[in-house]
Amino acid sequence: MRWYFVAALLTLLTSSQGILTTLSQTNGRYRYDYATIPFLAEIFKLLVSSFLLWKEFQGSYPPRMTTEWKTVRLFPIPSIIYLIHNNVQFATLTFVDPSTYQIMGNLKIVTTGILFRLFLKRKLSNLQWMAIVLLAVGTTTSQVKGCGEATCDSIFSSPIQGYMLGLLSACLSALAGVYTEYLMKKNNDSLYWQNVQLYTFGAIFNMLRLVWDDFRLGFYKGPWWQRLFNGYTLTTWLVVLNLGSSGLLVSWLMKYADNIVKVYSTSMAMLLTMILSIYLFSFQPTIQLFLGIIICMMSVHMYFAPPQILIDMPSSSKTAPDTLKDVVVE
Amino acid sequence: MRWYFVAALLTLLTSSQGILTTLSQTNGRYRYDYATIPFLAEIFKLLVSSFLLWKEFQGSYPPRMTTEWKTVRLFPIPSIIYLIHNNVQFATLTFVDPSTYQIMGNLKIVTTGILFRLFLKRKLSNLQWMAIVLLAVGTTTSQVKGCGEATCDSIFSSPIQGYMLGLLSACLSALAGVYTEYLMKKNNDSLYWQNVQLYTFGAIFNMLRLVWDDFRLGFYKGPWWQRLFNGYTLTTWLVVLNLGSSGLLVSWLMKYADNIVKVYSTSMAMLLTMILSIYLFSFQPTIQLFLGIIICMMSVHMYFAPPQILIDMPSSSKTAPDTLKDVVVE
Repeated sequence: MRWYFVAALLTLLTSSQGILTTLSQTNGRYRYDYATIPFLAEIFKLLVSSFLLWKEFQGSYPPRMTTEWKTVRLFPIPSIIYLIHNNVQFATLTFVDPSTYQIMGNLKIVTTGILFRLFLKRKLSNLQWMAIVLLAVGTTTSQVKGCGEATCDSIFSSPIQGYMLGLLSACLSALAGVYTEYLMKKNNDSLYWQNVQLYTFGAIFNMLRLVWDDFRLGFYKGPWWQRLFNGYTLTTWLVVLNLGSSGLLVSWLMKYADNIVKVYSTSMAMLLTMILSIYLFSFQPTIQLFLGIIICMMSVHMYFAPPQILIDMPSSSKTAPDTLKDVVVE
Repeated sequence: MRWYFVAALLTLLTSSQGILTTLSQTNGRYRYDYATIPFLAEIFKLLVSSFLLWKEFQGSYPPRMTTEWKTVRLFPIPSIIYLIHNNVQFATLTFVDPSTYQIMGNLKIVTTGILFRLFLKRKLSNLQWMAIVLLAVGTTTSQVKGCGEATCDSIFSSPIQGYMLGLLSACLSALAGVYTEYLMKKNNDSLYWQNVQLYTFGAIFNMLRLVWDDFRLGFYKGPWWQRLFNGYTLTTWLVVLNLGSSGLLVSWLMKYADNIVKVYSTSMAMLLTMILSIYLFSFQPTIQLFLGIIICMMSVHMYFAPPQILIDMPSSSKTAPDTLKDVVVE
């Protein structure tokens, strides 16, 4: 499996996620408890990974597995970062409106690049840095509110705390991604064994979230396990399977590709969702969506194309820029 | 004089042009005939170039001058193209609203690149093409109407003729620029002699425009030479001097640099004008202006930076993208 095939598949699944989630609503509202979705997705990923790990045991080479506590104890950390991130996200939304929040979410692309450089010591060329910034600029451009759209809050009018929390949120989200990549590449352990550890903790933390909601709401709907599948339809199950499958692809990318590839996949998915929404939900296309798509396409080409292809000039012209730069008159 | 110094000066003058023109209005209206401005600017450029040509005659080396009709007859062509362009522009505006017209104006950046390649046979790298497209995308982004702005016509709602004429207009504007560059670089003639020819025809064509207006309006304001300076203030004169000076810089760039440098200068000027308008005319800054500026800055860097700087990676990382691209699992 080549990484770009996995990345393209992740784009399709992430894009379907937005569309399926919208389709799973009845009259614009969820008839089920949305918090059950990530919990069941973790369970699904855990089952799939356990099965694949078991298959590896049947093979001629048993899977490499590090089982000492020193390593295992690192696997709950991504879940803990996501837990903090969710709370920061909640706090941010008390200061800024949802569209400003969405715009600020694109900062995550740049913070991922920075943490990727700082923590994983991975170096990027000047052009690749520019490509990352352009990707963030392109996704932001596509999200700029059109002339005459309903809500019309200025992006610059929120209190400073909102922007600080938005930045913190972008850093935490990037940190979770970069830390997961570090974990997956730390040793040559079987991907499925690493997944089993990751998703076991993921399932536990998501279950704690359901328990916490029960306590917060005083059990008035009954305990979480009794209402787990309440209001579930076929579409809801597709949302769970889709989220779980995209999670498995992300794990694969973290081990065999990297965070930047993942960021490109999910950014492309955001644009694809907007394009599909034009047809599915009669979303009004804007010129800024069109511009955003061009910018992101350029960014992909800049980041992934072999550098030599980018800078090579058809022969005979090599001298032109030099004569241009060296001309001195008077 | 290095080309980037001239280009920066052109940016400043072009940007001042927009601001001075706004300042030269009284209560949002022109008290003078705006058609007199380009005519007087041509006269100013003609006088300056004639003086500099005369100075060259005083020097030890007399200027190189080709005076045969075969060459001279090429110099009215840019004026003729501009004449056609102005009429196409007028026709376009009967189909599209002014903000759509402004947005389409950015197509000129791309058409200039294409004609530059086709007619002047100048080759550009893959990255430079991307930079040119990004420049057009960046200037367009900065002009996207913000949420809640007064006029709110959709960019996609004009009749097809409007877009066709807009495209024709972009091609004519690029053709005039590329043709002028061809003229200026055709031989080693003195720049000032080439200017004298260019501006003589420019002055004649602009005078014909004034005469034509007289006939069209039935001389009810009197002949053009009697009302030439009517309503002129100090600011109006500054508009003339400024337009004339930027024209001289453009000529210089056409001879010693090229059309792409000019296109970058004037695009940067457009952004600078928008930034200055925030302070001078309490123009409301938008996120799209901010995004447009980032995109254009990236474009400048991509087009003009030495390619090696763009693609060089700090050592030790060269292998990373290769291992990424070659990984094959299962």
